[in-house]
Amino acid sequence: MTGPHFQVLFQSKSSPARRGRLRTPHGCIETPAFMTVGTAGTVKAMDPVDLKNLGAEIILCNAYHLFLRPGHEFIQKRGGLHPFIGWDRPILTDSGGYQIFSLKGFCKISEDGVTFQSHIDGSQHFISPEKAIEIEAALGADIIMAFDECLEYPAEQKRTQESLQRTLRWAARSKSAHHRKDQMLYGIIQGGVYPDLRKQGVEGLLNLGFDGFAVGGLSVGEPQEEMLKVLEAVVPLIPENKPRYLMGVGTPGDLVEAVLRGIDMFDCVMPTRHARTGILFTSRGELHIKHARYKTDDLPLDPACDCYACKHFSRAYLRHLFIAKELLAIRLNTLHNLYYYLSLMSKLRQEIAQGTFEAFRHNFYQNRALGI
Amino acid sequence: MTGPHFQVLFQSKSSPARRGRLRTPHGCIETPAFMTVGTAGTVKAMDPVDLKNLGAEIILCNAYHLFLRPGHEFIQKRGGLHPFIGWDRPILTDSGGYQIFSLKGFCKISEDGVTFQSHIDGSQHFISPEKAIEIEAALGADIIMAFDECLEYPAEQKRTQESLQRTLRWAARSKSAHHRKDQMLYGIIQGGVYPDLRKQGVEGLLNLGFDGFAVGGLSVGEPQEEMLKVLEAVVPLIPENKPRYLMGVGTPGDLVEAVLRGIDMFDCVMPTRHARTGILFTSRGELHIKHARYKTDDLPLDPACDCYACKHFSRAYLRHLFIAKELLAIRLNTLHNLYYYLSLMSKLRQEIAQGTFEAFRHNFYQNRALGI
Repeated sequence: MTGPHFQVLFQSKSSPARRGRLRTPHGCIETPAFMTVGTAGTVKAMDPVDLKNLGAEIILCNAYHLFLRPGHEFIQKRGGLHPFIGWDRPILTDSGGYQIFSLKGFCKISEDGVTFQSHIDGSQHFISPEKAIEIEAALGADIIMAFDECLEYPAEQKRTQESLQRTLRWAARSKSAHHRKDQMLYGIIQGGVYPDLRKQGVEGLLNLGFDGFAVGGLSVGEPQEEMLKVLEAVVPLIPENKPRYLMGVGTPGDLVEAVLRGIDMFDCVMPTRHARTGILFTSRGELHIKHARYKTDDLPLDPACDCYACKHFSRAYLRHLFIAKELLAIRLNTLHNLYYYLSLMSKLRQEIAQGTFEAFRHNFYQNRALGI
Repeated sequence: MTGPHFQVLFQSKSSPARRGRLRTPHGCIETPAFMTVGTAGTVKAMDPVDLKNLGAEIILCNAYHLFLRPGHEFIQKRGGLHPFIGWDRPILTDSGGYQIFSLKGFCKISEDGVTFQSHIDGSQHFISPEKAIEIEAALGADIIMAFDECLEYPAEQKRTQESLQRTLRWAARSKSAHHRKDQMLYGIIQGGVYPDLRKQGVEGLLNLGFDGFAVGGLSVGEPQEEMLKVLEAVVPLIPENKPRYLMGVGTPGDLVEAVLRGIDMFDCVMPTRHARTGILFTSRGELHIKHARYKTDDLPLDPACDCYACKHFSRAYLRHLFIAKELLAIRLNTLHNLYYYLSLMSKLRQEIAQGTFEAFRHNFYQNRALGI
């Protein structure tokens, strides 16, 4: 590709919020964008036609999971992730760092990389920054992530400082190992909840040069306020012409607040995972479908929603399906939650471009305050 | 409705096979027809749009399951099954007899009816022929079934004879309890594997008068040969202008052989249940997707199949999804198996009308003999 990958189409005057467009070899992504998570090469309970009908422009797959099963070389032999999983739109792969450090099992860090045990069969593996980039190159996503160290929350400043320095050294090695010109490489900003460390994190990555900048290590248990403080500290340091990606975030409110603070991209398992446990997002807040109060409720999940589930089924039927452990419950819940997230992003893009984001934000909270 | 419900459009000259059309308040069903099973008011892993895309013209729901959860009166208050489950095409409900007699738990039969324990919570219930018809009237399906006694296989002649007589008395009570003019009531022919008893079964039902005739108590473990002998004994006794329904059958070969012997309707959990265990139907026989031989197999499930799964995904990907226990595995497997069953029926209808059924049948077995 020639020319810039990322273009800001509209910059809000009253906030860092912006409306943009990211070009990839598999098509454009309108930003701010939410990336639906397809961990093992499938967004749980959805097929590619479902995702296109929902308006998904990009999905995220986990290099860690695909490395373990079915294997990155296996996928490479099949032409990469796109043809293997039947998805011809953009894909982002994370580097596996977050998954490895989240494992309950054995995990040993050295300067060289991380030795860990598979969550599937307990087998031992080693991933270094070079190996992570090799795996991501084999998978062939449009956007790939540098290999970083993720800390638990809370972590004290000294430990966070040491970890950040390692992440920066690993970022340099990730960058050196990156050769596929058709893949964008994003660096990951660490530094915990310490604004000074976050600043060092951005500066270190800027010196190396990346196609985009991700804010990592958030949404790990800290209050929303702490997360937003970090965004306020780092976003102004990232060049305007580079996409900013907030990893693993978040609730609908998190998305609104982070977009307001200039974030362009998100990913989170929340809409799909909550769907499987019967928690459904609506304009009036979250609804737990298994609750007895919905047993005889003939309303749709969200009367204000235009998704397939809301247009065709009642809460009473969706509750019946969920209680009976029917697969259609998971399918309809997932369709609904993804529709909610993707249409929220679409709405945010529109409101930014119209200069009406603040009014939208006000209504967003007012509606939620009404309750279901 | 006025006029006959069922019309034979084409009668094969060389066999009892026929091509017909069944009119119901929710539309026509082209026969021979396969009814996809939607036990609890949902065909597992499919939504109504999926089913329409597959060409499903009718689904079967289980009165037993819906009586226990969410309850027939609950469904009646929501306007019946059709609006509750969002399916505006024909529905058939079975009477619950088969499910009750299949229960592993407590089940006590008297002349009046059956006392049994719920498979969900162990609660005790009683269903009589009158109660079964009341439940089915509340559910509001287009076609409902009389309440019958189902025997295990093998069952000796004396016991089968006694059971048949009770089924006929229950059929009379079912018929007397049936008042909804917009629901067709089918009688169920019992009599085990004894042609004489089956003959008595048909004659008893004919005296009572039903809108259709079902052959029950088959596909319970008997060899296919025994099942076909029963069909050869009973089908000639059923008036030509009445639909003939073979309950709970069967394999693709069973469908071909039963259609040849004049059966018009089928239902079976096989395509949906096998999908969930990774057994997939193809023109060359059954394929177990979890088998290691498919790990690196880049072919579609069935190169001769035009379904969504075969047009977009490889065996290698489908195996990956199945091994990773991904919900998309069940969805794609179910789509494929239902496509196989429904297109087999469509093909059979076409071949009967063209007078080429025998040649088709020959090819059907030849293709399967080739293996995958």
